[in-house]
Amino acid sequence: MASSICRQSAITPSPKISFRCNRVPLRSFYIFKHTNGATPTATAVRCSVRRPEYIPNRIPDSKYVRIFDTTLRDGEQSPGATMTTKEKLDIARQLARLGVDIIEAGFPASSDADFEAVKLIAREVGNVDSDHVPVICGLARCNKRDIDRAWEAVKFAKKPRIHTFIATSEIHMKFKLKMTPEQVLEKARSMVAHARSLGCNDVEFSPEDAGRSDREFLYQILGEVIKAGATTLNIPDTVGYTLPSEFGRLIADIKANTPGIENVIISTHCQNDLGLSTANTLAGAHAGARQLEVTINGIGERAGNASLEEVVMALKCRGEQVLDGLYTGINTQHIVMASKMVEEYSGLRIQPHKAIVGANAFAHESGIHQDGMLKNKNTYEIISPEDIGLLRSNESGIVLGKLSGRHALKAKMLELGYDIDGKELDDLFARFKDVAGNKKIITDDDLIALVSDEVFQPLVVWKLEDVQVTCGSLGLSTATVKLIDANGDEHISCSVGTGPVDAAYKAVDLIVKVPVTLLEYTMNAVTEGIDAIATTRVLIRGEDSITSTHALTGETINRAFSGTGAAMDIVISSVRAYVGALNKLLGFKNRVETEDPSQSKVLNAYK
Amino acid sequence: MASSICRQSAITPSPKISFRCNRVPLRSFYIFKHTNGATPTATAVRCSVRRPEYIPNRIPDSKYVRIFDTTLRDGEQSPGATMTTKEKLDIARQLARLGVDIIEAGFPASSDADFEAVKLIAREVGNVDSDHVPVICGLARCNKRDIDRAWEAVKFAKKPRIHTFIATSEIHMKFKLKMTPEQVLEKARSMVAHARSLGCNDVEFSPEDAGRSDREFLYQILGEVIKAGATTLNIPDTVGYTLPSEFGRLIADIKANTPGIENVIISTHCQNDLGLSTANTLAGAHAGARQLEVTINGIGERAGNASLEEVVMALKCRGEQVLDGLYTGINTQHIVMASKMVEEYSGLRIQPHKAIVGANAFAHESGIHQDGMLKNKNTYEIISPEDIGLLRSNESGIVLGKLSGRHALKAKMLELGYDIDGKELDDLFARFKDVAGNKKIITDDDLIALVSDEVFQPLVVWKLEDVQVTCGSLGLSTATVKLIDANGDEHISCSVGTGPVDAAYKAVDLIVKVPVTLLEYTMNAVTEGIDAIATTRVLIRGEDSITSTHALTGETINRAFSGTGAAMDIVISSVRAYVGALNKLLGFKNRVETEDPSQSKVLNAYK
Repeated sequence: MASSICRQSAITPSPKISFRCNRVPLRSFYIFKHTNGATPTATAVRCSVRRPEYIPNRIPDSKYVRIFDTTLRDGEQSPGATMTTKEKLDIARQLARLGVDIIEAGFPASSDADFEAVKLIAREVGNVDSDHVPVICGLARCNKRDIDRAWEAVKFAKKPRIHTFIATSEIHMKFKLKMTPEQVLEKARSMVAHARSLGCNDVEFSPEDAGRSDREFLYQILGEVIKAGATTLNIPDTVGYTLPSEFGRLIADIKANTPGIENVIISTHCQNDLGLSTANTLAGAHAGARQLEVTINGIGERAGNASLEEVVMALKCRGEQVLDGLYTGINTQHIVMASKMVEEYSGLRIQPHKAIVGANAFAHESGIHQDGMLKNKNTYEIISPEDIGLLRSNESGIVLGKLSGRHALKAKMLELGYDIDGKELDDLFARFKDVAGNKKIITDDDLIALVSDEVFQPLVVWKLEDVQVTCGSLGLSTATVKLIDANGDEHISCSVGTGPVDAAYKAVDLIVKVPVTLLEYTMNAVTEGIDAIATTRVLIRGEDSITSTHALTGETINRAFSGTGAAMDIVISSVRAYVGALNKLLGFKNRVETEDPSQSKVLNAYK
Repeated sequence: MASSICRQSAITPSPKISFRCNRVPLRSFYIFKHTNGATPTATAVRCSVRRPEYIPNRIPDSKYVRIFDTTLRDGEQSPGATMTTKEKLDIARQLARLGVDIIEAGFPASSDADFEAVKLIAREVGNVDSDHVPVICGLARCNKRDIDRAWEAVKFAKKPRIHTFIATSEIHMKFKLKMTPEQVLEKARSMVAHARSLGCNDVEFSPEDAGRSDREFLYQILGEVIKAGATTLNIPDTVGYTLPSEFGRLIADIKANTPGIENVIISTHCQNDLGLSTANTLAGAHAGARQLEVTINGIGERAGNASLEEVVMALKCRGEQVLDGLYTGINTQHIVMASKMVEEYSGLRIQPHKAIVGANAFAHESGIHQDGMLKNKNTYEIISPEDIGLLRSNESGIVLGKLSGRHALKAKMLELGYDIDGKELDDLFARFKDVAGNKKIITDDDLIALVSDEVFQPLVVWKLEDVQVTCGSLGLSTATVKLIDANGDEHISCSVGTGPVDAAYKAVDLIVKVPVTLLEYTMNAVTEGIDAIATTRVLIRGEDSITSTHALTGETINRAFSGTGAAMDIVISSVRAYVGALNKLLGFKNRVETEDPSQSKVLNAYK
């Protein structure tokens, strides 16, 4: 049960020590010396401590705070963030590397695709042969069907958990549930008992919209579900409405007034509508919560959730001094890769000034390192980039060029955190050689863009072979496209359009013949310079749409599908992204159509 | 001195009433009824109150909190966010509309361009013929030259302010300033006195890195600058390092222990490195601060500053209930336009899940309004989109089509908040007709993209006439470009490249002959559908760079210049953006070169 975790105070260790920290043997301790002459705010850093044994309703160390990541459930339900099963599995693996205690892998009753993804994550990530095995959790509304479905999906994990919820605020009970408080209480009690009766000894219960619920009723319903066997009580600020002082008070009040609360874990789940989710989450921990629900990059519906990286780094930097010594089991050096992966798969780009993981978070306007006035980087930086797994540019060891071989590429990718082999490596190598022919310096960002384009792709239904375009302000834009289908047959089509992308997409449509709406189109050059690789992302929705059920509202959601493409030519990059999105949509469609119709509500919605 | 401001609690007024709220006569009161059957959390909204008279060191209403916007100073110094004087003036005008109390317009000693911008804003925005005239503030380090320069720039405003600062933490005094605490204290005292001696009766002082400064020294230096004539004391959390409880305590301690503090205003300035800036700012207000320093969209160096929209909306929604009835003078219905303008001019795109102003902030995964389960929108939304000036799609009144004339376009643009006339309207109309020929429905977003491209452009040095491109995976990308210079002469050039943009940019370079580095390149489709308008943004840096001085570090900054372009053809859009960025750079270059060299340190740095 023990695993390597890193816990430190405000001082920033030097890159090398910080890097080693990731690899130290268990239970060893390192003293980090401040080498650059600053007055350190703390002198010692405990780098590797025992992660307490996992007991569903109790944490043997009262200072340890569990991190519950809901990127794959709450995050994935944000507009346009639909992920494939493979993408979810990749993220779950990264979350396990990160040392997340509980992974909420999805809402199994939402659709068959969600069910399958949770089941796969439970089997694969919930059984890793490692000293840290994360709990795999599935969400369920307070009804038997949802709870049974969740159990069917999570039971394959070593540590399965069912998370069930029902609204407890007057406004939600009256207008959404149309139930009396007594009915809600009985429902909650009986459904928690039902979850336990299935053999699940780890059951989380959330009173939705707790922040606006009547306090006495809240204590009562929480007391009842504890009696019924709940092991974690999660207190959501559903509308992102409370201020830190209020939310802290709410947690403290629940801790003081709920019968039997000493036998369970209190958890927070804070939305970010007023930009206060991180502060509210920390206030909750300070008041006694020992599980914090967060998402990578803070994604989620509306303004999203508390972000894992902010909450974890605040605890890491200030836990010792301000937050009663609270600490987490997160290995922060995997944060950047997790952030990039989620940005890639969810299609939700983070802003340059996003705390911790934004592109500017560690950047000063250039010149700052030039005239040497700033003798001590601690005068401004409080977290070192290496702490979160961000290599400073040109610090990465292996440099690739035109003549580099497959072996060097594989080594370089490993250095960047990607373990790629076999056909994936072959494909990546071919693309790498292509780019290396046109570009003197291949940067880390170039390689990451190519990996996204080549490796992080859905199952190929259609493959882009060639595209040729003529466009500009002097004539009609015309595009010719050649696609290869799953049988290896070539299809060629041409079209005119209002621009090169319009023309090329219309040519693709003539071949693929799936009516879709383009919802979003964005492009970025991933590196400096005119010979950069452009990464395109598109978001499409099929006219015969693919649906799932929204966890909180119970409504039917029309899923949208993102696709990414990378190339030095922006038109090729754009077409790659579009074909990628079509493949993702077609992959979902085929999956739904080949499954047992009796199991599938989605099928009927789709047809 | 009185002006219309809107103060309300958690309930969301209906769109129409909310809209009218913007236009009500002064000092009238409206009672908003909750029409949709919810249990309101508050029943009455006071819509229009008196803004207290402006007295530098005192606020006649103890519940009123001043909003100090530093988008144009702290925000503009973030990487790549360089703005032209015209752009700064546009933003300052929007900040005045928003009802910001103090506009920090820049750091006049930083460069001649900064000086000119502050002076222009002081003249134009600091003298508006309106019932609300914002204070115009200029930043200055604690030295005579900076302070004199700041006064030369701001003195043209009706209400000028000088903001001077010096570091007071041990780490900064020792490593950055190389001064003893006694020297720092004497410097602060004498420079505040110097600012007052110039005739400036409104002087703000900031102890930089206050969060890590020795408390006793902090009380002492603040007491001394009060005696020297400071009217506002700003307490920055420079490294974004404190937690809300700590920052609130810091403000409370300063309030309790600084001699003479009752005669001045306490202010907050919170960086966002741990994602806690909004919470820290509110904690500061709760503890007694009556000025809050913020930026639109939370832009700024590293992870940015507290964002105006989050702080203001938190006070608006929860001020009455949780924050002792604190309120601001911000007319929140101008928030969205301010946010879009700053995003446009700074080039810092906000993430979809940015609180308040992100694209998803009011979006639920689609379907939510379809099956009618959610009977009451208050079950999830706490702020109505109309509150911040966001029209729900298709609610805007005037619909434009192919046959619409100049008059209709002008009316529509006014409705969207743009007052455009003369040549700008003519140019916009020509572009509009172009697009209307290719697109059935012209959305508001399309129009806004065209305005950015046509109206929000720097002075034209080079104008793109034509571009023609051939590209794709089957051959070499080739571009031909025709540019018109300031004398109206045509220049044509062609180039090959690794893609259409590379080829076209190289062709432009052959004509313009200014060596630049492309730092960033991004593109977005502004509306749904394949026939959308693509907006491109590029960021370039000249090899012979244009520089200014960094406020905090004193170092030389190489400025970068952004350019935007919009077109239905992504290649044309890309070239427009590049030519726009080159024009911006050349505009700065010409300005610097034509000024008096004796005044200009920048000139030498540039040459």
